[in-house]
Amino acid sequence: MIYLDNSATTPVEREVADKIYDMLTVKFGNPSSFHKAGLDSNAEVRSARSRLAGALSCEEEEIIFTSGGTEANNLAVFGAAIANRRRGKRIVTTEIEHESVLEAVNELEKQGFEVIRLSPDSDGNISPEAIENAVNSETILVSMMYINNEVGSVLPVEAAARAIKKAGAPALVHIDCVQAFGKIPVKPKKLGADLLTVTAHKIHGPKGVGALYIKKGVRIVPRQFGGAQERKLRPGTEASPLIAGFGKAVELIPDLKIQQEKIRELNLYAKERLTAIEGVKLNSGENASDYIINLYIPTFMTSQTVVQHFSSRYGICISSGSACAKGKKSHVLTAMRLSDKIIEHSVRISFSRFNTKEEIDALAEAIKETAENYPGR
Amino acid sequence: MIYLDNSATTPVEREVADKIYDMLTVKFGNPSSFHKAGLDSNAEVRSARSRLAGALSCEEEEIIFTSGGTEANNLAVFGAAIANRRRGKRIVTTEIEHESVLEAVNELEKQGFEVIRLSPDSDGNISPEAIENAVNSETILVSMMYINNEVGSVLPVEAAARAIKKAGAPALVHIDCVQAFGKIPVKPKKLGADLLTVTAHKIHGPKGVGALYIKKGVRIVPRQFGGAQERKLRPGTEASPLIAGFGKAVELIPDLKIQQEKIRELNLYAKERLTAIEGVKLNSGENASDYIINLYIPTFMTSQTVVQHFSSRYGICISSGSACAKGKKSHVLTAMRLSDKIIEHSVRISFSRFNTKEEIDALAEAIKETAENYPGR
Repeated sequence: MIYLDNSATTPVEREVADKIYDMLTVKFGNPSSFHKAGLDSNAEVRSARSRLAGALSCEEEEIIFTSGGTEANNLAVFGAAIANRRRGKRIVTTEIEHESVLEAVNELEKQGFEVIRLSPDSDGNISPEAIENAVNSETILVSMMYINNEVGSVLPVEAAARAIKKAGAPALVHIDCVQAFGKIPVKPKKLGADLLTVTAHKIHGPKGVGALYIKKGVRIVPRQFGGAQERKLRPGTEASPLIAGFGKAVELIPDLKIQQEKIRELNLYAKERLTAIEGVKLNSGENASDYIINLYIPTFMTSQTVVQHFSSRYGICISSGSACAKGKKSHVLTAMRLSDKIIEHSVRISFSRFNTKEEIDALAEAIKETAENYPGR
Repeated sequence: MIYLDNSATTPVEREVADKIYDMLTVKFGNPSSFHKAGLDSNAEVRSARSRLAGALSCEEEEIIFTSGGTEANNLAVFGAAIANRRRGKRIVTTEIEHESVLEAVNELEKQGFEVIRLSPDSDGNISPEAIENAVNSETILVSMMYINNEVGSVLPVEAAARAIKKAGAPALVHIDCVQAFGKIPVKPKKLGADLLTVTAHKIHGPKGVGALYIKKGVRIVPRQFGGAQERKLRPGTEASPLIAGFGKAVELIPDLKIQQEKIRELNLYAKERLTAIEGVKLNSGENASDYIINLYIPTFMTSQTVVQHFSSRYGICISSGSACAKGKKSHVLTAMRLSDKIIEHSVRISFSRFNTKEEIDALAEAIKETAENYPGR
């Protein structure tokens, strides 16, 4: 199998799986228990928290483990908006956020918040000026992703904090770094983030665990109520095996510069091979992350059919967009004002450090054959 | 190590851990993806859902996977109360619920709901009459646990549906079966439940996954917003390894009658040995679940110190109450109107099918020695 859908989820590294297995069978205690079984489990949770804090250059107390990116995004968006509802009602975000931010702000809009959704250009880029213009003194939250999951565009997230300062707004900055973490440096302080989302299963860790960075001193309200875990901001028995696995995955992130060079090479090679196929068109912009290439394939098959065909015919896993959207028309490509024809026949390939040029060759052959045998109309 | 804290969490069965390992490393796809990696993962999620539905004698569509019991309880309580807020404002619950229900209704009370909290008797029991008297025509939710996690009392949950019918109330019934599932039959239809919570890590499955049964036709509002997963009631990438592990743990639940006989024998043996120690007093009532014994130990050490002492001196893991409460004074024993002296020096032992009489012997010796060497004042 050739796996080129790493923005949907990643294979778990052997060492991560081993750590999880050990936590399940040996260090199985409840991290809140005071006996050895509990303390052993708790020590692993603390170690993972420390590891993640190190990667984010933040303090351990600034990390709240959640069940994943969606929960962390929900906690950030609702938690910030509701905590600050008396200070203003404007929320600034973009049209190309992940569903977990889009749907959360939709819900807040129903509850009376004013939501500004910035439009991208045809490459999926958002300008810093658009952010500055959107933030006014009534703004209580700016929520943006760092790297877009469908086309890879890199958003100018640092502009949010500047815009807020300029407008004198009481706003918090939330940055969804699900696709950025483990690929480019993610340092909340440098990015000007008050809240920042990361998740394990995009960095060769397990599904079911993520984290929200909450800057010291920033107050948000919880979404979940119960025990005293995670400073009462996210109660419930800690998923200690997953948290420990997350910690191990963070530990295994390679030197980002070296990894970036490898992926850059892979990306350039892929673009060269793919654009050589007649009719193929790149939707990802010049400045997009090297990990994601969104492209139009000249075939009458719709994206989802292409995905299924590539899997069954070639053993190649790619995607028709966000896995969370389950085949719905891409809101990202739509926001980029691409034509229906482009939107309906585009796919996403997304790399990890485990991909090779040989896999790109196989992909290029598959696309070529598909375009020839099932040509676009 | 002698592990007698199974109500806090349980060791994961080898077959469950193996299934999770396979999901992490081989069937690692995103269950929402349309390629083989995704479909393989999705098939395991479906299989687990089917397995759990079988155990609950319900339909697959009635199961929503969550990150655990706390999330399922929050979804049930908030989801039902907010969906029905225009039909009434009374919520009936008890003083001895898990923190995840108690704190959720506290929050709803702040938002204007009226919360009735039924008091238990000195054995931790709630009478069916108390439930009937509390439910009026304004009641929109009755939320009760089936087996109490601290003292093992079995609540007359079936009375809720009867009381609602009698009062002509628009209420939904939520039953927290976290401690009951895998121990006594849990059939939502028979219990009259509209909503019912179960979790994996109390039945030798992994931490980080639970489920909420939602009766077909019952409408609740989601707490989390995002993708289309779990019928949009609980979006976010499915934690497929954990869900598959949950399914395997459900598959491994033994015949409940045979297991019950074994635990009954263990319970009677334990009670005989423990009450033979001078000064020991049982807090769990006559009719409590055989899986849980809450008892007073005549020592000057407080519960938490006893737990630490038993762990370090004897390698025995027991608990000072709910792990989620992290050493706070037990709200359950307090509600049972036990004296401060009893509350401060009581511990919980909780069994699983893997415990033995030899372990009880060791526990009894430890308690005897502790009472002798560190006697109560």
